Formats: sequence, structure tokens, C-alpha cells
Amino acid sequence: MNIVEIIEKKRDRREISEEEIRFFVGGVCDGSIPDYQISAFLMAVCINGMTDPEISVLTDAMAKSGDSVDLSYIDGIKVDKHSSGGVGDKTTLVVAPMAAACGLPVAKMSGRGLGFSGGTIDKLEAIPGFRTSLSEEEFIRFIKRDKIALMGQTKNVAPADKKLYALRDVTGTVPSIPLIAASIMSKKLACGSDSIVLDVKCGSGAFMKSLDDAVLLAQKMVAIGERNGRRVYGIVTDMNQPLGSAVGNALEVKEAIDTLKGKGPEDFTELCYIIGSFMLTAGAKAKDTREAREMLKASIADGSALEKFRRFVENQGGDPSITENYGILPSAAVKRELLSPCGGVVTAIDGEKTGAAAVIAKAGRLSKTDKIDFGSGFVLLSKIGDRVEKGQPLAEIYAPDEKSADEAEKMLAEAYSFGEKAEIKPMLLAYTDREGTYFDKNER
Amino acid sequence: MNIVEIIEKKRDRREISEEEIRFFVGGVCDGSIPDYQISAFLMAVCINGMTDPEISVLTDAMAKSGDSVDLSYIDGIKVDKHSSGGVGDKTTLVVAPMAAACGLPVAKMSGRGLGFSGGTIDKLEAIPGFRTSLSEEEFIRFIKRDKIALMGQTKNVAPADKKLYALRDVTGTVPSIPLIAASIMSKKLACGSDSIVLDVKCGSGAFMKSLDDAVLLAQKMVAIGERNGRRVYGIVTDMNQPLGSAVGNALEVKEAIDTLKGKGPEDFTELCYIIGSFMLTAGAKAKDTREAREMLKASIADGSALEKFRRFVENQGGDPSITENYGILPSAAVKRELLSPCGGVVTAIDGEKTGAAAVIAKAGRLSKTDKIDFGSGFVLLSKIGDRVEKGQPLAEIYAPDEKSADEAEKMLAEAYSFGEKAEIKPMLLAYTDREGTYFDKNER
Repeated sequence: MNIVEIIEKKRDRREISEEEIRFFVGGVCDGSIPDYQISAFLMAVCINGMTDPEISVLTDAMAKSGDSVDLSYIDGIKVDKHSSGGVGDKTTLVVAPMAAACGLPVAKMSGRGLGFSGGTIDKLEAIPGFRTSLSEEEFIRFIKRDKIALMGQTKNVAPADKKLYALRDVTGTVPSIPLIAASIMSKKLACGSDSIVLDVKCGSGAFMKSLDDAVLLAQKMVAIGERNGRRVYGIVTDMNQPLGSAVGNALEVKEAIDTLKGKGPEDFTELCYIIGSFMLTAGAKAKDTREAREMLKASIADGSALEKFRRFVENQGGDPSITENYGILPSAAVKRELLSPCGGVVTAIDGEKTGAAAVIAKAGRLSKTDKIDFGSGFVLLSKIGDRVEKGQPLAEIYAPDEKSADEAEKMLAEAYSFGEKAEIKPMLLAYTDREGTYFDKNER
Repeated sequence: MNIVEIIEKKRDRREISEEEIRFFVGGVCDGSIPDYQISAFLMAVCINGMTDPEISVLTDAMAKSGDSVDLSYIDGIKVDKHSSGGVGDKTTLVVAPMAAACGLPVAKMSGRGLGFSGGTIDKLEAIPGFRTSLSEEEFIRFIKRDKIALMGQTKNVAPADKKLYALRDVTGTVPSIPLIAASIMSKKLACGSDSIVLDVKCGSGAFMKSLDDAVLLAQKMVAIGERNGRRVYGIVTDMNQPLGSAVGNALEVKEAIDTLKGKGPEDFTELCYIIGSFMLTAGAKAKDTREAREMLKASIADGSALEKFRRFVENQGGDPSITENYGILPSAAVKRELLSPCGGVVTAIDGEKTGAAAVIAKAGRLSKTDKIDFGSGFVLLSKIGDRVEKGQPLAEIYAPDEKSADEAEKMLAEAYSFGEKAEIKPMLLAYTDREGTYFDKNER
């Protein structure tokens, strides 16, 4: 088989065969196809797209390029969740204990954060003593007993994706819906769950700026799942500002616990109910999302979700009294307030700028070796739609020193826009599964 | 400046600035832009195209990436010619002496052949003693005295083109009209002539299969010339079969001499008149191509073109008596005939297959280090439109040994197609200059 002919086909918008796609992924992994040919292929895909059968085979080949995770030791339908990423997204910390409290086994493998969005592993490690490197035996035992465990990815999952992503990042070929879908789904397929709830963020703070693109990405991932024997629910949620109020690891842990107590920010609580209700439905613990939502609400009201969280923290080496004593969590050396430069209504809080400000405040990392300050970050006191007076505090800023606080404050101030009136969108913009795509519905 | 942003612009069909293009070409030359980014850019250009201003700047930057040739020591308008290449194209061997005989100074720099089409340098070196590596002093002296000299490219002409072409060749990005136009024109701009006559081949045996593409390529090169202060004449000529009868170095020299004696094949003679008449018009030696054609015909009739060729051969170390004694030229060890497998009319002679057969017969090379057998090649006895009987000789095959003769015969047989009736096209299909594009005219 000849890689130049495969590139030419994609350049000319002709469909490439299963054998050709597997040859390509094999050559990416074993290094027999040089980077300059891979990047020419990626650009051709980026501009000309791929058919659903092509994307499915590409995803499967990428998923099979490394280790697979076996979840067969857990009874019932295994449901995974994934979010396309966003600033302040601590959903897993709330949804995992809620779903476990409702009887769904949650075997979660997570990654670290890089760039503007934080990783779940980083957030949990803000809890003193919390271990994310479990042995497989521990992982299985915790899930069997308590229906919840979370560990860092230890296996070599989808190395073809790592290689391709590194090249896409430097060749202008990141924003391709087929390549994004294949990248996300290859890791999900390798992680072995039966069903996957995908949260595709849409808006100024998300990678997908338009609803059309976000829905298309969700549809592609549903199609990939269907062709590879997994049931996928793609939900598209609004992301025109950071999620909830807290941005930064320890701050987000506090907000997650508040939410498990029924005292979380409205937007974040709503998102947790949406994702959780799709998970319970996918896992056949509820007959529809309406029933699932009632179960989730009950798990908050009766304290069972919070109790699951305490058990989860204790299992993995942390102090469960953290739910009552936030003083255990790391705190930042410097605290100050960002004051509003004017009066008016908050019309936008730019996600990328907020994320960049969080990196400056040492709450996130730009390179894999950067150290995180777990206590740093922001608490956003005003969000879209809130009317503020000039000089009123917009946000609390936490940082390890005055210099980074200064710089983070400057960057965070740039994230805010003000006007006369703000447009407030519902959290759930659309959802899609193998039966179809639905817009403007909060329940299916 | 950021190469990824430049790639993204081209990916999204946005125009890139002059500074960005020069930054790109600079980075290609100094190695600061890695191959995988160059190839992503080339694929984006290949699919999304380039505007005329972009192509012009790219060409200029490529031309200036290496040495420039200074022709200012020659009085008058310097006219260069270039052909997009074809099997059996020995035009320069006839047009250069004809034009010189008509008073036009011809300072020609040529290359060697690679792949299916032979190079002028290789053809001339079939003449025993002929030197193509002249000193600059000799080159100038011959042109001043006899108006004709030809040398191999000694200078570092357009190294950016060499680098880009090598990558295009292995990344499926060769067939891009902007990139082809920039590649050809960058070398022509660096070679310092005032006016350039470009012969764009069109048809099954040429790189441009359709008239539309061939005309577009010619127009792009005219536009590049105009924006860079050079007058370009783009002529599109038919190439549905090899040009003339002879394919192979010594065989083509003989055919060129025959043509200078007025006894050449009809199609090849016509092409020489077309190219020569545009050259004389471009160099202000004739008021139009009609007058130029009469001058060229006279140079054949009165023997002055043949005399120029003899002087040209003598100047550069060859024996001028070659024009009367073909026995001086190398001859092949094995000669045989390809017989027609059926009766009928020849409807096509595939150029690529004929070229491949010539390479098998050792008349051409596939890699730069391959040795050429100067006596090898073919004389095509039947061409498109000729009616043949079964068993009638279609071509003479010349090869260094029986084995290559066998293989070449098999491949050459595949090049021929037969039918009831053949379509014969005029040689000049279209021409274009800064005043416009004209179709179906033999003269302007």
C-alpha cells in the first residue's frame, strides 16, 4: 500500500478504504510514515472531511493502537462520561458520587489538565492524601463495594491519538470535527465502557463556538459509537462563561461539596443533573431522564450522594471530614478582589481569558512539568446577567504571591464584558443519540 | 510571525500577506520551519488555491532564494523558452538555432532529464565531445559572436523550489496549478531574461490533461510575469502522443537535424515554428507571429538555421560534420521492430507509457545516478491517425541488450491504442499573454 496514493485520495475527496486507514494508523504508530506525510494527510482531512464509515474505522484503529481496559469484572452496563472541556468544569466530582448513590457503578479513568482547562485528577489531588494511582485490585474492590473509584490513566491508551494530536497541534489541523471526534472516541473505546455520555460544550468559552458545529461533533461521536458497538448520548451544553463560580483546584473541590449539599451554583447544579440523568438512563437505572433527575435530586436531599463522596475520598486516602471542614484544603497566600471598572450588566466572561488568568495565578499549567498551586484560582461573584455597580467586587482572586495576583487580576479583568442587557441561554442546548437529535428540550 | 497562523489562514481560505509568504519561504530555506509544517501548508494550498498576488510573491521569494543570473551583457530583449515537458520534446535543439539565425540572441540554461521526459542537456551530450559545462566567459563570447550558447545550470537557482518540490513529490501536492506556476516561474525569474515563451503541454501525454487546466496554468504564469516585470507568452499545445517520431537522445538529435534541413516530422516542425514565432515576436525581431513564421521558414530554406546549429556544436566541442554524418552519433547494440497486433487506425500513443518504455530501454533515467545509453530509444513509424495492417511495423526499438529490448517492446506495445477513426487536434490549442487568451488560432 502506498501512503502517497492515500493522501491523494483524501486530497481529491475520494473515500479511503478500511485497509488504507488501518495502514495509515499502523504507519503512524511504528514510525514508518514520516511526519510530513502524516501532516499532509491531516490537512486534507481537515479541509475535505471524512465520511462516517471512514471516521469509525479511524477511531477503531486508533483505539486498538494501544492497551484496552477490561471492565467485564463489573456487573451491569458500564457508563463513562466525557466533557469536551471547559474552565471551572468540576462535573465529575459531583456526578460520580450522585450516580453511584443511585446504584450506577462508576469506574472512572481521568487525566491531568493542560492549558486552559483543569483536569479532574489535579482537582482531586488538592485533597491532602488523596491517591489517584490505585492498583487494579483496589480499583475493582472499591467499585464492587462502593460503586465508585477514580484513577489516573496508567495504561498506554490510544498512542496513535497522542502522536496525531501532537502533530495537529503544530500544523493547524486541530479544528476538524472528524479528527476531534476520532480523538475523543478512540480513548473512550479503549477504556471499555458500554455506554458513553458526552458533554459537548458550545459557546465563546468552548472549542465549538457554534451550535451547528457542536451538534455535528456530537452526532459524529454517536455514529462512531454505534458502528463500534457502544451506545453514545451526545449532549450539547452552553459554555459562554466559566461553569459555576469556582475556578482552581481546591476552590472547585469546595464548590463540588457545596453542590453535593444542595448549595451549589445554579448553572453548575443544573449541568450535573443533566449529565447524571443521561448516565442513569444509559445505565438502565432509570426509565427516562425525568425519572433519573428525581433520583439524583433525592440523592442530594437525603445526603446519600454526599455520603458516597465521603466514602470515595476515604477509600482513596483522603480525610472524609473534608466535607465539613474546608480548612483541610490548601489555601492561597494572597487574596484580593477584582472590582468592577463600571456599572452595568455582565454580558460575557471569556473562558479562554479566565483560563489564561488561572494559569497565571498558578491554578493551571501550560507545560506538563509546571507545578500547580492547589489553593489558587478565582471565585466569580458576578456572572452573565448580573447587574453590578462600579467598584463592586466581580471576583475573588487567590494566588501564591503578589506578582502573580497582579498579573492574574489584569487578565481576569479583560475576560469581563458589560452592557445593558445579557442573553441567558438554557444549559442544555441540544442532545443526540442513535434515535435522533433534539433541540431546546430539557428532558427527553 | 507564526507559521501555524499562516497555515491556518490558508486552511480557512484567507489571503496571506507578502510578509507571511516571505517568512514561509525564508523558513523553508534556512530549515527553521519543519517539513511537517511545510507539507501541511502545501496541502492547504493544493486544495484551497492561492490568489494571483499570493502566487506572484511566492514566486519572487522562491526566485530570490538563490543565485540570480545576470544577462545584462547581452544587448536587446532576452527571450527564454520553457516547455512543461513531454516525451520526445527536442524543440530547443531546433528553435534555438532558428531563432539565432533570425538575429535573436539565445542564452539558454537547461537541465537534465528525470523520469519520463528527457532533458536537453542529455540530448546534446549524445553528440561526442559536446560540452555543456561552459565557463561564463565562453558562454558570453559565443552568444555575442554567434547569438547562441547553451549550458547546464551551474548556479544555485531557486533552492526553495528544490526543497518544496521534493516535499510535494512525496505528499500528494504536485498537481496544484499555483504551485506548478510558482515552481516554473521562480527558475525563469532567477535566470534573468526579459521575456519568456512558455509551452504548456495539454493532453493524455502531458501533466495537464484538460485544456481548461492548461490554459489556467498559462494564465497564472503570465500574471506572475506581469507582476514581476517580465513579459510572458503562454502557449498551450497538443500532447496526445510523443512529439515527432524519435524518442531517445541520439535519435532525437538526428530528428532535430532533419528538421533543420526541412525534413522533420510534420507535428514537430509545426511546434518549432509556433514556439520560434512567439520568441521572435517577444524579442522584437518580428512585428507579429505571421512575419516571424516567414523568417523562420526562410532560415530553414536558406540553410542558415542548420549553419547556426553547426557553429553551435563546434563552439561547444562537438564535430559539426555531424549534420552530414549521423554515423558519428552513438548507436544501440540491439535493434528490432514493434509489429502491430491488429489492423486499424492508431487512436492514441500514451506518453507516460512511451516514456516508461524509454526508461526501460535505458534512454532515460529514474534516479539521478542512472546511466543513460545515448543510442537507445524508439522511432515511431505510425502516429495518431495512421492506418496500419496487422504485422506492420509500428516502431523501431533501440536498446543496449536483448533483455531491455524485450521489456521495452512490451511496454511500448501497451502505449498504442487502435480503433476505427482518430481525432486529430491542431498543434496550437490556445495562447495567452497580458492582452488576453485566444483559442483555436494558429496565428495571432
